[in-house]
Amino acid sequence: MSPERFAALWRSLLPIGRDGRDGGYLRRSWGPADLECREWFVEEALDRDLTLDPDGNGNLFAWWGDPTAGDAVVTGSHLDSVPHGGAYDGPLGVVSALLAVDELRERGRKPRRPIGLAVFTEEEGARFGVACLGSRLLTGAIDPARARALTDRDGLTLADAMTKAGHEPLDLGADPERLGRIGAFVELHIEQGRALTDLDAPVGVGSAIWPHGRWRMEFTGEANHAGTTRTADRRDPMLAFAAAVLAANEEAHRQGAHATIGRVEVTPNATNAIASSVAAWLDARAASAEALSSLVAAVRERINERAAAVGTGFAMIAESESPIVEFDSGLRDRIAARLGGAPVLPTGAGHDAGVLSAHVPTAMLFVRNPTGVSHAPTEYATDADCAAGVTALADTLEELAC
Amino acid sequence: MSPERFAALWRSLLPIGRDGRDGGYLRRSWGPADLECREWFVEEALDRDLTLDPDGNGNLFAWWGDPTAGDAVVTGSHLDSVPHGGAYDGPLGVVSALLAVDELRERGRKPRRPIGLAVFTEEEGARFGVACLGSRLLTGAIDPARARALTDRDGLTLADAMTKAGHEPLDLGADPERLGRIGAFVELHIEQGRALTDLDAPVGVGSAIWPHGRWRMEFTGEANHAGTTRTADRRDPMLAFAAAVLAANEEAHRQGAHATIGRVEVTPNATNAIASSVAAWLDARAASAEALSSLVAAVRERINERAAAVGTGFAMIAESESPIVEFDSGLRDRIAARLGGAPVLPTGAGHDAGVLSAHVPTAMLFVRNPTGVSHAPTEYATDADCAAGVTALADTLEELAC
Repeated sequence: MSPERFAALWRSLLPIGRDGRDGGYLRRSWGPADLECREWFVEEALDRDLTLDPDGNGNLFAWWGDPTAGDAVVTGSHLDSVPHGGAYDGPLGVVSALLAVDELRERGRKPRRPIGLAVFTEEEGARFGVACLGSRLLTGAIDPARARALTDRDGLTLADAMTKAGHEPLDLGADPERLGRIGAFVELHIEQGRALTDLDAPVGVGSAIWPHGRWRMEFTGEANHAGTTRTADRRDPMLAFAAAVLAANEEAHRQGAHATIGRVEVTPNATNAIASSVAAWLDARAASAEALSSLVAAVRERINERAAAVGTGFAMIAESESPIVEFDSGLRDRIAARLGGAPVLPTGAGHDAGVLSAHVPTAMLFVRNPTGVSHAPTEYATDADCAAGVTALADTLEELAC
Repeated sequence: MSPERFAALWRSLLPIGRDGRDGGYLRRSWGPADLECREWFVEEALDRDLTLDPDGNGNLFAWWGDPTAGDAVVTGSHLDSVPHGGAYDGPLGVVSALLAVDELRERGRKPRRPIGLAVFTEEEGARFGVACLGSRLLTGAIDPARARALTDRDGLTLADAMTKAGHEPLDLGADPERLGRIGAFVELHIEQGRALTDLDAPVGVGSAIWPHGRWRMEFTGEANHAGTTRTADRRDPMLAFAAAVLAANEEAHRQGAHATIGRVEVTPNATNAIASSVAAWLDARAASAEALSSLVAAVRERINERAAAVGTGFAMIAESESPIVEFDSGLRDRIAARLGGAPVLPTGAGHDAGVLSAHVPTAMLFVRNPTGVSHAPTEYATDADCAAGVTALADTLEELAC
């Protein structure tokens, strides 16, 4: 695959949902940009004479070969973005899947196993708060009634958002028949760090996804006037929150893990009022379950100490906890060998591949990201590396399906 | 004035703009609750045969006696609230003004100077960001074109909000003729601290308003993926922000002043994204201009150090700076003496009285607040203390006008 061939298809998707001010993407699931991306995929699949076969969970599937034959090799990713996210996270895997089909056809290959292209919905969890929502629904990892009742920041439920977009929310739920037809799943994704840059390799193969959790932290105090309340009389929840931000960063650094507080909601959030409460979210990841719980325990203890010292309340509620995912070792070694000994590396980010790996032999391919930036407008891969990714994915599909 | 008489009028205002969940008030200027409060005032003034005389700036005036005679004694406060604020901040001064008229009439007094009742608009600055907007416009302290262009958080301008409420924004601006007719201004307000409680006194007289400033702080970094970016590769603006919160509190405590960060806006504010930027507002007040600049300089220096250490940007822009206000000493001493040696005390909070004091001899009365809570639903004064406040205000008006 030439960089020019890659760039031609890539550019057709770029304008959809792009914020003209910062160049970031606003493709929240079931919103107008997401629906336009889905239409784009449907048209590209039809142009390639693929058989469209969406599921009841909002996930799109398109097939080369007989979808009912079973033992299929499926590849794909997602099209939704975090707010002001980059162009590559998700869409690179979808564009590469379409181009890999083109590449295999140009090589004159006829798959003996059906090849499926998948687009999963709400992978980022940016709208309804549950990451990998489409693949979780498909695999039965989340109850459909609970999913329907999830709300976005405007209070709209997933059921409402799907209905508004013309989709039937009552069809949500596990689909073991569809899942049973998939013999292997491969997700290509832009790398979200700089390991491939350090290794001087355009493409790598995934080994594992670090365990990961999200905790909602509630800091409670007493609203009061900023101009008249003596320091000693204050019960300002912002102080324990600030200590939490610093503690999370310091403990992560000390323990070689990741801990981030990137989302904060202050009440009443007025310039001249001491806050009555602060809600904030801790995102933490580490190389093992033990390392993750040690990290979170250390952060919690430091916050508890500070909250007690300033006389404010603190509570921490786990919103999601994901165990380590180790990708299928046979598949991983076979692909790495086929790609001429491509480097094998873990990631701290969750993916639909992680959800599917509990049910189906699963692998991931990563494409080099020179700056390592992810979830931001400057996220980037060169056309040459993306084309190398397409070639690697085509090689992988050829190895597994042809 | 009996506590029951006070409570009867007080209760008629309580339901307007009250949030049923936390009991706080949502009376933002020119919004539905604010308009309903204004109608309430107009009706109460008409019930008392007062002459209505609103100005072009959205401030309401009602007169007992000839408004054009000059050398008037004016009393009043405001009806808007901070989001989820208390019931007393502002309305207590308006209700007390109406009841002080009743009290003087019951005493059989006929004022020799006209008595005016005033309701100033947008005192809190909670909607358009400029505190004491109504009195600033009246006194020419803010340019009317600049005021018209002020926007609320939804991007609506003051001109739009006034037009929507049926008021002509082109009438905004200084009104020296009206100001020239005012010979003295007295604002009664709930105390916003616990000094009167410590002094065991229901009513006090204001001496001064501490100098006060608001600064917008911009922390800039680089958005990135929370799960994959190594601590060493991060440029997370949340870290310098957190250091700012702690530095402001510590320096204020050390210097015996007030410094608060109660408003924060994070971009993109997503759980799994390192923030690209954090905006936060510093509210600082101290007993003198020198103390205030020393406080702010110390906070700025500590933030600069931390921002440099973590490789993120920091800028601090003054949004408003108010010099110390010393109330008219002759008026203050005369009122304190008339009230039988009521205690005299300063405040850290801004008021319309502070704006007017640059043009008119001005005084303030404070009513005891047992918990000292202000700008929050638990802000409170007993009916007995409020009634004592009405009596003190009636005594003051009698002293000055009769």
